Amino acid sequence: MRAIIIRPPNAGAEIKEIKDAQNYGKVKIKSLYSGVCGTDRELVNGKLSLGKAHKDRDYLVLGHEAIGVVEESVGEFSKGDLVMPVNRRGCGKCLNCLLGRPDFCETGGFVEAGIYGMDGFMREEWYDDPKYLVKIPKALEDIGILAQPLADIEKSLQEIDDIQKRLPAWTCEDGTINCRKMLVIGTGPIGLLFILLARTLGYEVWASNRRDPNETESVIIEEGKINYYNSSAGFEKLKDSVGGFDVIVDATGANAQLLDKVIPLLNRNGILGIFGFPSDGIFSISYKDLQTLVHGNKLILGLVNGQKPHFQQAIVHLASWKTMYPKTSKLLVTRTISINDENEVMKALKEKQAEEIKVRIIWD
Amino acid sequence: MRAIIIRPPNAGAEIKEIKDAQNYGKVKIKSLYSGVCGTDRELVNGKLSLGKAHKDRDYLVLGHEAIGVVEESVGEFSKGDLVMPVNRRGCGKCLNCLLGRPDFCETGGFVEAGIYGMDGFMREEWYDDPKYLVKIPKALEDIGILAQPLADIEKSLQEIDDIQKRLPAWTCEDGTINCRKMLVIGTGPIGLLFILLARTLGYEVWASNRRDPNETESVIIEEGKINYYNSSAGFEKLKDSVGGFDVIVDATGANAQLLDKVIPLLNRNGILGIFGFPSDGIFSISYKDLQTLVHGNKLILGLVNGQKPHFQQAIVHLASWKTMYPKTSKLLVTRTISINDENEVMKALKEKQAEEIKVRIIWD
Amino acid sequence: MRAIIIRPPNAGAEIKEIKDAQNYGKVKIKSLYSGVCGTDRELVNGKLSLGKAHKDRDYLVLGHEAIGVVEESVGEFSKGDLVMPVNRRGCGKCLNCLLGRPDFCETGGFVEAGIYGMDGFMREEWYDDPKYLVKIPKALEDIGILAQPLADIEKSLQEIDDIQKRLPAWTCEDGTINCRKMLVIGTGPIGLLFILLARTLGYEVWASNRRDPNETESVIIEEGKINYYNSSAGFEKLKDSVGGFDVIVDATGANAQLLDKVIPLLNRNGILGIFGFPSDGIFSISYKDLQTLVHGNKLILGLVNGQKPHFQQAIVHLASWKTMYPKTSKLLVTRTISINDENEVMKALKEKQAEEIKVRIIWD
Amino acid sequence: MRAIIIRPPNAGAEIKEIKDAQNYGKVKIKSLYSGVCGTDRELVNGKLSLGKAHKDRDYLVLGHEAIGVVEESVGEFSKGDLVMPVNRRGCGKCLNCLLGRPDFCETGGFVEAGIYGMDGFMREEWYDDPKYLVKIPKALEDIGILAQPLADIEKSLQEIDDIQKRLPAWTCEDGTINCRKMLVIGTGPIGLLFILLARTLGYEVWASNRRDPNETESVIIEEGKINYYNSSAGFEKLKDSVGGFDVIVDATGANAQLLDKVIPLLNRNGILGIFGFPSDGIFSISYKDLQTLVHGNKLILGLVNGQKPHFQQAIVHLASWKTMYPKTSKLLVTRTISINDENEVMKALKEKQAEEIKVRIIWD
Repeated sequence: MRAIIIRPPNAGAEIKEIKDAQNYGKVKIKSLYSGVCGTDRELVNGKLSLGKAHKDRDYLVLGHEAIGVVEESVGEFSKGDLVMPVNRRGCGKCLNCLLGRPDFCETGGFVEAGIYGMDGFMREEWYDDPKYLVKIPKALEDIGILAQPLADIEKSLQEIDDIQKRLPAWTCEDGTINCRKMLVIGTGPIGLLFILLARTLGYEVWASNRRDPNETESVIIEEGKINYYNSSAGFEKLKDSVGGFDVIVDATGANAQLLDKVIPLLNRNGILGIFGFPSDGIFSISYKDLQTLVHGNKLILGLVNGQKPHFQQAIVHLASWKTMYPKTSKLLVTRTISINDENEVMKALKEKQAEEIKVRIIWD
Repeated sequence: MRAIIIRPPNAGAEIKEIKDAQNYGKVKIKSLYSGVCGTDRELVNGKLSLGKAHKDRDYLVLGHEAIGVVEESVGEFSKGDLVMPVNRRGCGKCLNCLLGRPDFCETGGFVEAGIYGMDGFMREEWYDDPKYLVKIPKALEDIGILAQPLADIEKSLQEIDDIQKRLPAWTCEDGTINCRKMLVIGTGPIGLLFILLARTLGYEVWASNRRDPNETESVIIEEGKINYYNSSAGFEKLKDSVGGFDVIVDATGANAQLLDKVIPLLNRNGILGIFGFPSDGIFSISYKDLQTLVHGNKLILGLVNGQKPHFQQAIVHLASWKTMYPKTSKLLVTRTISINDENEVMKALKEKQAEEIKVRIIWD
Repeated sequence: MRAIIIRPPNAGAEIKEIKDAQNYGKVKIKSLYSGVCGTDRELVNGKLSLGKAHKDRDYLVLGHEAIGVVEESVGEFSKGDLVMPVNRRGCGKCLNCLLGRPDFCETGGFVEAGIYGMDGFMREEWYDDPKYLVKIPKALEDIGILAQPLADIEKSLQEIDDIQKRLPAWTCEDGTINCRKMLVIGTGPIGLLFILLARTLGYEVWASNRRDPNETESVIIEEGKINYYNSSAGFEKLKDSVGGFDVIVDATGANAQLLDKVIPLLNRNGILGIFGFPSDGIFSISYKDLQTLVHGNKLILGLVNGQKPHFQQAIVHLASWKTMYPKTSKLLVTRTISINDENEVMKALKEKQAEEIKVRIIWD
Repeated sequence: MRAIIIRPPNAGAEIKEIKDAQNYGKVKIKSLYSGVCGTDRELVNGKLSLGKAHKDRDYLVLGHEAIGVVEESVGEFSKGDLVMPVNRRGCGKCLNCLLGRPDFCETGGFVEAGIYGMDGFMREEWYDDPKYLVKIPKALEDIGILAQPLADIEKSLQEIDDIQKRLPAWTCEDGTINCRKMLVIGTGPIGLLFILLARTLGYEVWASNRRDPNETESVIIEEGKINYYNSSAGFEKLKDSVGGFDVIVDATGANAQLLDKVIPLLNRNGILGIFGFPSDGIFSISYKDLQTLVHGNKLILGLVNGQKPHFQQAIVHLASWKTMYPKTSKLLVTRTISINDENEVMKALKEKQAEEIKVRIIWD
């Protein structure tokens, strides 16, 4: 069958006939859509040091965002069902993995489809384990591919909420979190999903980037009643006007120095969540910021990976956005490229276009 | 202005011009829809002993399910916004009420709009406090009235989940609650909302009633992939076929004796949640069932009232159902009666029609 | 070696030479003390229907409360260390048991030393698994035997606290639980341990029995600043004077009808915890009490079994009581009988003496 | 009456007759002991920039660790009871302070006795509010003064445990946290209390300092079965031998650069807790460490201040240590100085002696 393969740590990708890709269970699945994300592009461009083929193989099938069609009914999965595979699979040893939560794997022995030690889903078909499959409602065929990246954000905001519940009162005087302020830095696909989910959960949200919002962003910001801040001149004015934030999420993935600058914007008991990470630079916390961190019960937290429960929540939220944010939900998948249009596929795997949110490949 | 008023504990209701109904804040709201529920009918039929007018008044404006339109912009509320009022208001004294959670009021000094000590919303307009108002997206105008009863169920299933988190492992081997089985007894509006929400959260769900499902129920059951059990001959066969349930919710509101019969269906660590309550009869737990209750860490729990955070969750879930359960979401509001059609309004307030889920009054 | 064996469901016990008792691991332990509890007496008197020998055996070694001395150093256990075995061992299948918490076993496939499917510790020596062994500080040799029953109560009060944390505010205005009122019904060994632990955790506590306190109880009540109520004439006067309780624990283990009577004493959001259970009778909840249960978010909960984390907490609390309640801690172990005094041992296994709290057998 | 006063931000302290010190309630308390801690010394030496007198006053009564004797019975407090005041008092505005938890004050409007905006307890007597008083058992007169600093550590380890409960499995295969490894950096009074409490809760503990342990530390380490690491040559060897730590607590309060060095010792899902803070320097996290922080769900957390519930837990733990760690508990209070011995008092307020843990002043 055809597959998109890479040979990490080398740059490059090719669409190729392969015979021996890995399979994971009894449910036969034919690929319908593959999502392309920044991690794929880093792999294809040879920039992600974490990429690794399965130990017995010299290539890796790319792809960790996928929707497929069940080919033969097995258990709860019926022929024709749309399914999405969970991309990280557990180490089989630690208690968190035994509990279905390799996002919190303790051994580091997990694998990640299309990234690290496990063939991904950019191929015509594969067999999978029901434990790692999530059903996608037919009515979500259009934007369901976003359930994978959104799952990572569901996990992140769930984790932040779990941590804040240590506070006697994290909720506001009306019992909601509507009074809580979140700043999301970066308006790439991950930043936008953070913003939308945070609004859905009730936060007052500020998006920021080092420029004014583009047209797509403007629609989303207006529909979602999101505040926007142009940080090209730093964050001082934002601090002056808002005061501080209960949660700050870095979704830029690129800039350690940025973190230094937003630490002073954290409210007492606030959380700085870091999603993605820089590949150079140093995050420096001055003794003054350390003092306020200690005195203010603040914390800095790494955010990574969603698992099956988060995929299921992501699907409910995507379904709700079609009603609540109809304009936005039409903008989330920017375009669909046929796997037969090899040039376009390769281009999409190498470079993100302006204003693009999610590109998907259709296996037609 | 016109209002629907009652004089508890007396039976009867009338549509009447009134001048002195209570107001609660600065946001002027014009009524758009009022929902009619079983509690309204019990009040109108003189069967709810809890009904009580405000202490300075000899009548009570009925109505605790409402959608209105903001008349003048105030703070976050803009002219034209659709809003729903939260129906229970706190005692102002206990810590739970100060935290915006009068569903857990400790003093019992709360009031409930249209039911107990506080004028309701079946009137042309009222003024309210932003703290108790929830925005309804325009796209939910059709079924948004269900956010009030659904909020009660959001609170109930949240409370059950909070309690089960005391277990080292409440989630399943895949990290979800898909392996957990819930039995919902009763398929009235409350029962149906329990079923739909439980499915949305991931439970495997059984609905039961003492008859086969009617046509409306059949559509919902099929679309939601819900199991159905006809309990006319008791629950033994259900126990034989399923084994046991992790959560059983009584949504019949009428039958204490029924509770005796479902206790043996509770799994170890299981919860029996009681929503609504009988007005006669005795719930008898034999020493044998008490033994399994003690040995099995089981619990019996009263479920009541949702607050503002639950209204907000209800809105997200209703929005998601329009995508995930399109047929069902069209059946949830059975019909809309004009306030000008006095006969139909009065009939709807006295009696529930066959297969009816939610009836709403439009203030046109 | 000598052991005390029983043949459930038959009454009777004998001290006998045995050769083939079960062992559970690599740590060789010589018995020092065995505690005698109500469950042992029920087994010896043929009154506990749950008693069962290991499936391959026609007798069962009695004993689930034990302190032994390590005979040879293994890992963290050094020769001469005092250790206590955890008495319930998991099913090996369900997630709760894999997490070391067979108190919440879902399959019911656990075994209980000296009671159900597993030889107990009333024998000269046994081999055990480090996973199920808890170290006892030398300075607790005198009262350490109470760590086993106290572990059950640690679990119970921990579970109650975990459940109450679903409330926005379970703690009081000073951040403690000092304003929370607990009623403990029954002043047997279990009741007294409940009372002492509840005080240690901060509750205001009422003890009750159907008589005035005896001399031993009077010392404990005074030293611990515990309130006492003689319930011989019912609970109405208690309700009149105190108002209501946030937690009521039944520690009588004998009387289903009693439960009916204390339900009206539960505060809103209150918990009725049942520890032990009757062997006949019916617990009847009237529709009126059901109404307040539902309206008041109340719950009824079965309480059973503590595990290794609870044994460790019990040891810390027993250690603290030697400082905080010095008179009480000297009364908790009423007497010590030599295993060589066969008559006295048999008498103690059959009948509890007046004012006795804990009797232990010494393997000298 | 006599009091020890300071005039922050100026260095210096004096024992002086004063008339107008602040009082806080109805309970009249005569000072028995005052504890001296590092913060007192920083204030007296003019090194703590946070120090501030009450706004209407040009001096501040020093002292935040105190045991007093109730002079007249009020409510639950009887004449002769030993009591300890809680040192931080809430802002009266935010929900956390209303819930009795000014340790999580959101406004920063709290005051701290003897440090910041509120007269302390180094004076002959004061009046206080029952809400802020904790009873000290008579049998803890000897070491009870440690309940104040220990309360800070109770809060810290409670907060860490609350945060780790977001993990599906934080406890080990035996249900305890015995498999969890904690490194405590610094063996001053705070470090030693961290070590002892962590052991009591079940952690496997490593203490470290840039030298070998002194005689006092050696006794504590041996009795508590604590591991020790001399970090004078860095932490590499510790990493090599242990692998990694689930919790690292910095209790040095002085060295931002140290934090850089221990980040690589954090296990996946691990927490770096910072108690106290440097007054210069920069904590630098390299992009490589940031990557493992993000990928490993790690977090960095400020730890500060215990409140009344933590004082109560501290008392239980101190009481238990008299039984479990008898040698250690005799070493914790190094010496007692009479308030009449003005020279010694002033010396103790300026400088810590070698091997000193806690010095207290007796108001005789």
